[in-house]
Order: sequence, then structure tokens, then C-alpha cells
Amino acid sequence: MSALLEPVALQHAYRLLNHGPTVLVGSAHGGRVNVMAAAWAMPLDFEPPKVAVVIDKATLTRELVQASGVLSLNVPTVAQAGLTRAVGGISGKTHADKLARCAVQTLPAPQTGVPLVQGCVAHLECRLLPATAHVAEPHDLFLAEVIAAWADARVFSQGRWHFEAAPDALRSLHHVAGGHFYATGAAVP
Amino acid sequence: MSALLEPVALQHAYRLLNHGPTVLVGSAHGGRVNVMAAAWAMPLDFEPPKVAVVIDKATLTRELVQASGVLSLNVPTVAQAGLTRAVGGISGKTHADKLARCAVQTLPAPQTGVPLVQGCVAHLECRLLPATAHVAEPHDLFLAEVIAAWADARVFSQGRWHFEAAPDALRSLHHVAGGHFYATGAAVP
Repeated sequence: MSALLEPVALQHAYRLLNHGPTVLVGSAHGGRVNVMAAAWAMPLDFEPPKVAVVIDKATLTRELVQASGVLSLNVPTVAQAGLTRAVGGISGKTHADKLARCAVQTLPAPQTGVPLVQGCVAHLECRLLPATAHVAEPHDLFLAEVIAAWADARVFSQGRWHFEAAPDALRSLHHVAGGHFYATGAAVP
Repeated sequence: MSALLEPVALQHAYRLLNHGPTVLVGSAHGGRVNVMAAAWAMPLDFEPPKVAVVIDKATLTRELVQASGVLSLNVPTVAQAGLTRAVGGISGKTHADKLARCAVQTLPAPQTGVPLVQGCVAHLECRLLPATAHVAEPHDLFLAEVIAAWADARVFSQGRWHFEAAPDALRSLHHVAGGHFYATGAAVP
């Protein structure tokens, strides 16, 4: 783990996604590791914290998450916009060297070994919920419980984001379409 | 409908929520009309466009949406931060005059009559999907198909947001916690 990361109390974990950032989904199974970009992720409950994320049938991530029952959600930054576009642009199914090509480095999460994406400002280690069985097939929807979370103390502390206190390169991303992003903006008075 | 609103092609409707804004959920049944704030909403599919939104059991919105089978998602602006906090702060269950108190004005959507919230920069008229039956009870999750959509042409045109082309007061909101919001920020190069 980076020295900049601090654990986030589980009751505050939903706040890592509450503002609607694009995420990177980490997954691994049987020696294969993958990372994909997903704009369609959101909190689902406060405590225990739960999340919902859409993972298409065509993806390697789908295969790995269904086989392992675990996934990570990672919040990339403006500095990682290129990386986020890159992992969103090619599939781990057709490119076995996807992570190297996209310059993605990962670390295994403590409880499950699911890969966390280095350089992101927040990480959620998650385990699939049973109700996923009803919505994965018809709607590509995955529901998961957050079992651990971390955030970069430069932008998230005491249970709150503080993007205004750090360089703009550490702001999170909001995907519009086709690799175009808005950064998280100014605090609203 | 406001003269500023233009229909959004259904294949572009997901883009109204893709960047993760906080929404206002409109609902009506049996003469009762309500609007609540929700940070937990996201696209679920491209075409036909579908959405997912979390609606707590304690809310009047839940009652009205379950009874009517329809809801609207509306994207409020920085100028409406006070209104968004207000509707997020009291329940239509305990305050029959909630909309008047919160200075919320609505118009019925053309196909279903579900209320659209005036002054918002985007509106999605939605009908519940059958799979909701599996996830509403355990996870307060509602899945819906978007049957019509509109956006304010000052900030959304040709299938894309253009917040940089309009006053900052028209930017969308991203809820952090406790009524604190970030505005949608700068386009990322």
C-alpha cells in the first residue's frame, strides 16, 4: 500500500463513490488479473456499505468477478485520465498483456487478494452479494458489499473529500462519453 | 415544458447521468406528488436506455413509485443547490406541503404524467422494469427504462454536455455528504 493511503471507516466508505466518479474495476482469478473502466457504479447502502456496478458480458472482468466473487473499485484521478481511457479502450480478453500496455500497476488487497489500482485516490475491496444472481444476467448489474476501503489522505480525510486542498491532478473523473471527462469541480456554497 | 428544453434522442439519454450527478426523483400517484433528492442513481443500459436508483423504504417516493410504476429523474443545477438540500431534508410523508415549502414546481411528463422538476437541466421519464421485484425489497434498488428524455440546450446539445459554454450556475451537482456538493468541474484535456 502507498504511504499516502489511509484506511476509511466502513461507515464512510459510501462517500468515496457518492459524488459519482468514474471507477476502475479490479479483478483476478486463476492467475489472471484485469482492470476495466466503469462509469456506471454507485453506492447501494451505508452500513454495511454496499455498491452496485454494471459489468458487461463481453468483458474479461465479468468472467473473473463471477469466478472469484470479489472485485475492487478504485477512483482514478485527472492525472490518470490517459490510463483510464487506455483500460477502457481494450479488452483483457483479446490483450493478455493489457495491464502492461496500459501502464497499470496493482497490489493485492489484504483480505481477498483482489487487485487495487496504484495511483488511485480511493479503493474499495468488495465481495459479491447474493442478489447479484437476479440482476447480473438480465441487466449486467453486480451488487457487492464493501469489506475494506482506503483513500489518499491528501484529498480524503475525516470521512470527507477535500479536493480543494490538493493539486487539481488529484481530482476524480466523471465520464461524459467517448473518453471525455469532467473533473470534480468547485465546492458549492 | 420550458422553451429551453429539447428532446434528447433515446440512444443519448444515458449521457444525462453518465457523469454521476445527484438527481431529483419525481413521483405521483392518486393525487399525491413528491420530489426527493438521490445521489445514488446511474445508467444501467444504453439502448433502450435504462437506469438504476436507490429509493429508501422510509420515503413517500417509494410508496408512489411502487404504486404508479413510473418515476422521473431530473438533474438539478448549482442554482438549485438550496432546493436540492431542502427536498433532501424533509419527507413528503410528514409534510404534505413539501413541494410548496421547498419551492419546487413540477410539470407532468407527456407519456405517464410523472412530475418533472422545473429548472433542472435534464429530465428522464422512466417506467419500472420487472427485475425491480428482486432487488427493491432487499436493496431498495429500482431499475427502470427511460421512455423519454429532455435537456436544457444551453448545457446539453448534439448528445453532449457543454457546461463550459454556459454560466456556472447551470452546472450539475455531485453530493459528498450532509448537503455538501461539488459542481461538475473542468473538462479534462
